[in-house]
Amino acid sequence: MKRSERLIVLTRMLVEHPGVSHGLNDFSRVVGGAKSTLSEDLALIRQVLDEQGLGRIQTLTGAGGGVTYIPALEVQDIEEKIQELCQELSSPRRILPGDFIYMADILYSPVWAWDIGRIFAEYFRPHQPEFVLTMETKGIPLATMTARALNCPLLIIRRAHHVTEGPAVSINYISGSSRNIDSMSLPRRALPTGARVVLVDDFMKAGGTARGMLDLMQEFQARVQGIGVVMATADPAEKLVEDYLSLLTLGGLEDRRVDIRPSENGPPGSGVSKGG
Amino acid sequence: MKRSERLIVLTRMLVEHPGVSHGLNDFSRVVGGAKSTLSEDLALIRQVLDEQGLGRIQTLTGAGGGVTYIPALEVQDIEEKIQELCQELSSPRRILPGDFIYMADILYSPVWAWDIGRIFAEYFRPHQPEFVLTMETKGIPLATMTARALNCPLLIIRRAHHVTEGPAVSINYISGSSRNIDSMSLPRRALPTGARVVLVDDFMKAGGTARGMLDLMQEFQARVQGIGVVMATADPAEKLVEDYLSLLTLGGLEDRRVDIRPSENGPPGSGVSKGG
Repeated sequence: MKRSERLIVLTRMLVEHPGVSHGLNDFSRVVGGAKSTLSEDLALIRQVLDEQGLGRIQTLTGAGGGVTYIPALEVQDIEEKIQELCQELSSPRRILPGDFIYMADILYSPVWAWDIGRIFAEYFRPHQPEFVLTMETKGIPLATMTARALNCPLLIIRRAHHVTEGPAVSINYISGSSRNIDSMSLPRRALPTGARVVLVDDFMKAGGTARGMLDLMQEFQARVQGIGVVMATADPAEKLVEDYLSLLTLGGLEDRRVDIRPSENGPPGSGVSKGG
Repeated sequence: MKRSERLIVLTRMLVEHPGVSHGLNDFSRVVGGAKSTLSEDLALIRQVLDEQGLGRIQTLTGAGGGVTYIPALEVQDIEEKIQELCQELSSPRRILPGDFIYMADILYSPVWAWDIGRIFAEYFRPHQPEFVLTMETKGIPLATMTARALNCPLLIIRRAHHVTEGPAVSINYISGSSRNIDSMSLPRRALPTGARVVLVDDFMKAGGTARGMLDLMQEFQARVQGIGVVMATADPAEKLVEDYLSLLTLGGLEDRRVDIRPSENGPPGSGVSKGG
């Protein structure tokens, strides 16, 4: 295969499977070529993607090592995407009876879900999470994409224990806004004891669901490395969880004007801090 | 930018966003170069991916046209992946109390979900669906990936009507296996009248859920182009829906031996037919 052809195939193989480690043998089986040639090709791919801010190529040497495409985002890209999301969600057409904001089309769009998932992944990646968790239902598509961007398994916490999932750990929690007592459940075998996890959801008001997820994680002795939500309400300012990342803050709805603004988070790496 | 560098950037842009149409201007903004040069580069990418069975590049000319990466799979890849899935799910370690099979780790793995989503997309793509629908909860990750592979919006049917989603259409249906009467609900504004849709789920036994989804789709005058499930039981042979695609057929569990086999579907394009 010619060099130009190899570069196309290698880039396709890497980008199609973000976070997945490929050995040089995997590549040479498809494109042929000596390992030294392949290494040069991969070095060029790494350099070009790096220069253009189009993701990182990570190379680990030794046993279990390999070459991995990390779908990293530049700080500027993150800011632009959050700004765009903000504008999209601020449309008065989204206001529903009861002053809710219709978000499902954004949360369920594969393009938006991938963008949001990559943003969460950018914040969480330094903590090397092993699992991405969400509570059913609306956060699942973006949790799926967060899991894809981190190449971690996704786990879905259910509202009830389902017999088709085997023995489970269930807890009760107080839904912060409605003050109802609800339950949440995760199969015992889904999560090994002591794992590093991140929690992802679409929306946070009082933080009752997130608090419940933290409590459930204690039962698995999981180390929670971060909580991410797309949007949190400004009120109440004190949530039932202390540290979380929200991309957007919802100030309120007044006279059919929607007050949504980007939360005051630092860039990824500055610590996942409380939205403001 | 040099040709080798352009090929890397163009391949990355296309593969990162499957199903998304890019104009030549989008490309030239990043890599520069005359349109004729870009067209040559894209022709090479198309040719190489085609020869290697690594996806298709689709070019539509005229207004609204553009260049799109289709994450297509070869028939042989589909057969291999289904075979691998079959082996993975046949492990006796998966048998749960009550003779259920634990599948969540596969259904929620981003790599498996992307593979399964691409397979469904390959079958459904000729019907040009506009929406991918699933019923909460376990099918959502793979429905998300099917939607990504087709670049369609995902819609999630809920078990109950939620006030945060606005006015909704709800129906009652009889769950085929438990004979319970349950309800399912989809926001009115989620789906325009008369749209082409495909339905995706993880599992089918009697087909009651799928039947309910078909009935709900009638309320939206939707044209259902296909139903896809990962696994269907051999018994009952007569389901409550006539045409569906199942990747695997579950014969039964006997003496802790799991009888799962690839369903007898033709290759994509031969018609989405009943699993056997």
